[in-house]
Amino acid sequence: MSEADIIARYFRPLSPERADVRLGIGDDAAIVAPPAGMELVLTTDALVEGTHFLPEAPPQSLGHRALAINLSDCAAMGATPAWALLSLVMPRVEEHWLAGFAAGFGALLRAHGVALVGGNLAQGPLSITVQLAGLVAQGRAVRRDKARPGDVLLVTGTLGDAAAGLGVVRGRLAGPDGPALRARFEYPTARVALGQALGGVASAGIDVSDGLHADLARLLAASNCGCELDVERLPVSPALRGLAGSGAWRYALQGGEDFELLVAAPPERVAGLREAALRCGTPLTEIATLTARAPVGEALRLWRQGNLITAPAADFDHFPA
Amino acid sequence: MSEADIIARYFRPLSPERADVRLGIGDDAAIVAPPAGMELVLTTDALVEGTHFLPEAPPQSLGHRALAINLSDCAAMGATPAWALLSLVMPRVEEHWLAGFAAGFGALLRAHGVALVGGNLAQGPLSITVQLAGLVAQGRAVRRDKARPGDVLLVTGTLGDAAAGLGVVRGRLAGPDGPALRARFEYPTARVALGQALGGVASAGIDVSDGLHADLARLLAASNCGCELDVERLPVSPALRGLAGSGAWRYALQGGEDFELLVAAPPERVAGLREAALRCGTPLTEIATLTARAPVGEALRLWRQGNLITAPAADFDHFPA
Repeated sequence: MSEADIIARYFRPLSPERADVRLGIGDDAAIVAPPAGMELVLTTDALVEGTHFLPEAPPQSLGHRALAINLSDCAAMGATPAWALLSLVMPRVEEHWLAGFAAGFGALLRAHGVALVGGNLAQGPLSITVQLAGLVAQGRAVRRDKARPGDVLLVTGTLGDAAAGLGVVRGRLAGPDGPALRARFEYPTARVALGQALGGVASAGIDVSDGLHADLARLLAASNCGCELDVERLPVSPALRGLAGSGAWRYALQGGEDFELLVAAPPERVAGLREAALRCGTPLTEIATLTARAPVGEALRLWRQGNLITAPAADFDHFPA
Repeated sequence: MSEADIIARYFRPLSPERADVRLGIGDDAAIVAPPAGMELVLTTDALVEGTHFLPEAPPQSLGHRALAINLSDCAAMGATPAWALLSLVMPRVEEHWLAGFAAGFGALLRAHGVALVGGNLAQGPLSITVQLAGLVAQGRAVRRDKARPGDVLLVTGTLGDAAAGLGVVRGRLAGPDGPALRARFEYPTARVALGQALGGVASAGIDVSDGLHADLARLLAASNCGCELDVERLPVSPALRGLAGSGAWRYALQGGEDFELLVAAPPERVAGLREAALRCGTPLTEIATLTARAPVGEALRLWRQGNLITAPAADFDHFPA
């Protein structure tokens, strides 16, 4: 199969129609028409074999994850995802793999009405890079640097499931809820609907991709706030509790890849946020109140059962110092 | 060095300031503000070690090329490049490499006033993926499917230099003009200024990335036109003529990576196109006139010294059938 054949068979049919796509796949570039009064949100994220997934990873999961990690970034900005580009590097043409990948990628495109407008195919070690453009009303995007002391800190869904799911994939964890946790790793839910409700409500937001500890520390640093966090308040699923028992909080605190949203909002806006979450069917849990940043010491202090604890952020850094 | 350190040291300082960038590198996504009445052009292209460059390739050249190949796609659409994202996968942190790469990438960003608004770093086999967004007035983008019989076909610059330059890099060609040709491969010129002048003037355009033969065939197929091309009319540099002699036309016809623009325009608009090219300092050569597509036979027929010739398109296809 030539590049053109691969595109025609697997990628051109994936995309839902959008009236704002003037020209899709097939020219030197795509042409799209952003509506007046909107700002654009631009993001890119990649999955690399050996770093982000094992060689035997199901292709359908890779198609889903490659898009979901970008949808999550878009959601954390309060934007509505619109147009995607896909850059795929693969060692050889395997139709079974391509069909699975396209099924996973395409299902999520359709679920969110995102058009695949272009991309690139090249030969080389397997990696998947997606670029996503989203739309947000002027001045309504949610950044990570606008939280203020007194803001309430909330998180969607449950934390730690994906990290436990990766443990299941790797054979390090097992139990009756193993498959459910594995699915949370392989098919994460980007909180797109709630993300769109954040503009003008949340003061700051970030998606939990590298673990709550690491991503909360980023939000605090960007917003110059502090936080006293009781790790037992972190929302944990029954499945994770069943598998990890009293150690579940460690997964919830440090585990990455959950793609939940961590949101700060002034107390008077929390009721509105809860209503939006109900409308979206997205669980939302209050986990702390932000404080002023202390002049010395850590911005984030962790408590458990009344005691200050220390824990590494387990920040996922490809190039640790 | 951590990811954050690499971004702070090498990538954050690269980018020229743009008033339409509301939020650049450092959040979950960038926020940019497209002006009213403009459409967006979106493209992505990648360089993969072993496929697009050799392990010993100079990092400054890779930084330049990774952006230039995307600028060229944007130019071929008649758009003005605006915002870039960079996804870099590399096996380890090598500061010398990063400094060179950033220098090449940054110089070209500044030359065209393009802001680097975000990206991604990951560990893995070396590959570089750039996404570029450009702006074009509504309905003025130049596509490859709107050429008409009777249109004049023109090409910028000279053809075949980059392919010969790659031959020099690989030690297969040598001569006094070797370094100049090598530079044409390592530091290609994207025809950005002329590209911006094409809207409303050219009927169709494509950039010559895979060789004139392959890219002209694409334009003809998309526009349903034919062409009788005398290969001796293709513009060839004195350097290529010096190195390749009477075989220069083969480089010009089949060699890729020149990133010249191939443009079709109605005869009455050619004078305007020539004036625009003069203003941009971009050489522009008329090479053929398009015809109706014959009902049978090839859309593109090649002539040399009065004889019909056959030549493989040398289409660069990573996954040939």
